[in-house]
Amino acid sequence: MSEQELVNEELRRLAVSGDIGRFLVHARKLHPSDLSDILAGLEPDVRLKLVKTLPPEVVSEALAEMEEEEHPEELLAALRPEQAADIVEELEDDDAVDLIAELPPETAARILSSVADRADIERLLTYDEESAGGRMTAAVVAVSQQVTAGQAIEEVRRQAEQVGEFYQVYCVDDRDRLVGILPLQRMVVAKPETPVREIMEPPPAVASPELDQEEVARLMARYNVPAIPVVDHGGKLLGRITFDDVIDVVEAERTEDLLKFGGAAGDEHLAGEWHHAVRRRLPWLYLNLLTAFFAAAVVLVFEETISQIVVLAALMPIVAGLGGSAGTQALAVTVRRIALGMIPTHSGFALVGKEMLVGIINGLAIGLVVGLVTVATGRGWQLGAVVMLAMWGSLMVAATVGAAVPLVLQKLGVDPAVASSGFVSAVTDIAGFFLLLGLAAMLLLPGG
Amino acid sequence: MSEQELVNEELRRLAVSGDIGRFLVHARKLHPSDLSDILAGLEPDVRLKLVKTLPPEVVSEALAEMEEEEHPEELLAALRPEQAADIVEELEDDDAVDLIAELPPETAARILSSVADRADIERLLTYDEESAGGRMTAAVVAVSQQVTAGQAIEEVRRQAEQVGEFYQVYCVDDRDRLVGILPLQRMVVAKPETPVREIMEPPPAVASPELDQEEVARLMARYNVPAIPVVDHGGKLLGRITFDDVIDVVEAERTEDLLKFGGAAGDEHLAGEWHHAVRRRLPWLYLNLLTAFFAAAVVLVFEETISQIVVLAALMPIVAGLGGSAGTQALAVTVRRIALGMIPTHSGFALVGKEMLVGIINGLAIGLVVGLVTVATGRGWQLGAVVMLAMWGSLMVAATVGAAVPLVLQKLGVDPAVASSGFVSAVTDIAGFFLLLGLAAMLLLPGG
Repeated sequence: MSEQELVNEELRRLAVSGDIGRFLVHARKLHPSDLSDILAGLEPDVRLKLVKTLPPEVVSEALAEMEEEEHPEELLAALRPEQAADIVEELEDDDAVDLIAELPPETAARILSSVADRADIERLLTYDEESAGGRMTAAVVAVSQQVTAGQAIEEVRRQAEQVGEFYQVYCVDDRDRLVGILPLQRMVVAKPETPVREIMEPPPAVASPELDQEEVARLMARYNVPAIPVVDHGGKLLGRITFDDVIDVVEAERTEDLLKFGGAAGDEHLAGEWHHAVRRRLPWLYLNLLTAFFAAAVVLVFEETISQIVVLAALMPIVAGLGGSAGTQALAVTVRRIALGMIPTHSGFALVGKEMLVGIINGLAIGLVVGLVTVATGRGWQLGAVVMLAMWGSLMVAATVGAAVPLVLQKLGVDPAVASSGFVSAVTDIAGFFLLLGLAAMLLLPGG
Repeated sequence: MSEQELVNEELRRLAVSGDIGRFLVHARKLHPSDLSDILAGLEPDVRLKLVKTLPPEVVSEALAEMEEEEHPEELLAALRPEQAADIVEELEDDDAVDLIAELPPETAARILSSVADRADIERLLTYDEESAGGRMTAAVVAVSQQVTAGQAIEEVRRQAEQVGEFYQVYCVDDRDRLVGILPLQRMVVAKPETPVREIMEPPPAVASPELDQEEVARLMARYNVPAIPVVDHGGKLLGRITFDDVIDVVEAERTEDLLKFGGAAGDEHLAGEWHHAVRRRLPWLYLNLLTAFFAAAVVLVFEETISQIVVLAALMPIVAGLGGSAGTQALAVTVRRIALGMIPTHSGFALVGKEMLVGIINGLAIGLVVGLVTVATGRGWQLGAVVMLAMWGSLMVAATVGAAVPLVLQKLGVDPAVASSGFVSAVTDIAGFFLLLGLAAMLLLPGG
């Protein structure tokens, strides 16, 4: 066991035995993220008892660091409203908003009514959770552009207490409009008598409160800035978003991407119980079942053909499997291209064209091999030719569908990530079976 | 057109017409990321001419901001070694290392031999590219723990020139071992006479140079720190990694995740030509073809059964499609669980057990519907029972395989992300056909 694990073990023991005094002595020395891990590992009743007993300044940050799927807001809801309010008051406004936004409206209102300074929180709650406004904190250090560096440092001293960690000081005009940014690094080295105007930088990037959080992450990575100011349409400074929010966002989106792509619900809790997983996944499976029935219907149309050329049944999974694979490849590449903003307006057609070309080439390469194997195993050159053509057409359709579906969804304003690999595979199944069985019926059956 | 697009258009025109003087006037006002976009959008020969003509301090940062897939190192390689060295000298050491690591060894050596201060770069090149050592910069601002805040600020003034942007000052003992961290925020508000020892913090997280870059990203997100110091095993300070490197890493891994999961190569260039895409994807398709031949072989074994009960051919895609979907769901969830470090040692079995349970429940739910539809369409209750059982077993196998494959790969030290949806679908195809056709042969055929 590492030293950290020993400490955690000891804390767990103290919590269970109810020795809150000694627990608190240790807990105060922990990083809130570490304390939140310990809370998450305890039995629900022990955890709740701790949250009720520990001082709000210790509990608050641990709740803020808890994973969303551990539902820290439920702990808040289990407290008396006044006690919950004490915890909320200790939190930075963006963390408070994250917790309160998850609560039922009545519970949220009951707690908020006991929070002394709730104006910022109530304003932040009006923005979409996944927008810059929903992610920002209103706690910024701002100085007038008229002051000197020395005066700015005085101002920072005065404001720093309420603001938590920050990396830039914002310079505003007399109508609170953002005019420049002062990285702390510049403040440290500046001579006190230098006017702030001379050392401030133009903001390399600003966000409007409506900007999607992923866009904010992209701006931050592009301009290598630890924070991005949020301004309204008149240029007035509203708040800021810092890198740590953005890293969390990108990691969370990464999980969501993969789950959606894999045809699971994007919000399945990875640490949830089995029945949670069943409830999230079963609806998607029923949706896939519907498309699978279509594929089965296509096969039924050609029941007669299969009964005469039974080997077609063995070729079906090859055509379907490879079509699904090629379609999924095109889908993955296109979903990422869209997410990274790599597809300029009106170039969607060019992109589908490129993917179709890839499908044509790969389809030919795979089709030839499957056709030759069919001939080599003594099934006749006619069947070989049918399989080759079906494979070729199927991979072309698959690549086109894989690229087109997310682009069309985006045009319709739907998240392109809902086009899962399962859905694209189902569509390519239908096309593949139709080609294989249709061509066989036309070319191989007497009188076809 | 937006203002930005107009500026870009004008710059493109100036570059093509060869008016380097006026181009430079505009280029100096641009953020390096914006200049790099303009360079990336030019014809290769125009771009190279610009890189040869523009002053190194303008070109260097634009090259550093270029996407990996635009191959900025090739521009460097096309210059005279002395000119390339001038550019390298302008770069921060971690950016220089990123470029040089992509060059053929002889080219890299030729350029480096003309770089005046190459010791740091050569040392950083010895680390794995995806480790903390490979990502860090050796340029840190460090002060002795013996000095006062005022002396530290003097030291920051002296060192800041060579260091670029930084967010923390590191406090070291007399053997250069890291003993504390001084966030700039604390330096700004500290009284000059305060000893640094009294205001420094213990480092919330440090990285060894071998630590994987994804682990570094996780530490930064967990402890909300804009930079993480890298120390050797004796505690000596070697360098630091900042949030902007980490955001890039997480975004890049996110692309790689989805491409691998979709059965495309993780290093396919999203902006590449069609023949690049063909070369990357075709090998994976051939691999899938191999597994598809196995599925076809299973079907061939039961050729006789299908010829007697042709409707089985229509049920095959339902069993295969749903098995593939359920397997892909379990795979997506498990890959993310592993990536997020959510699976403690020895709990792999418990996880596979949970997924198997989900497969059993979902398999029953789906199997009942398919069985009932089969009976309702007049195919007989015996066939309905066979389909239900096959579906049930198939989804159980699919969920188990989807969860087990990435866990086994991880145990073997292989990246779990190589288990693509295509591979899992192929395995579940085989299991599904075997169950459906085998049960049908046993239970439905006379003498079966």
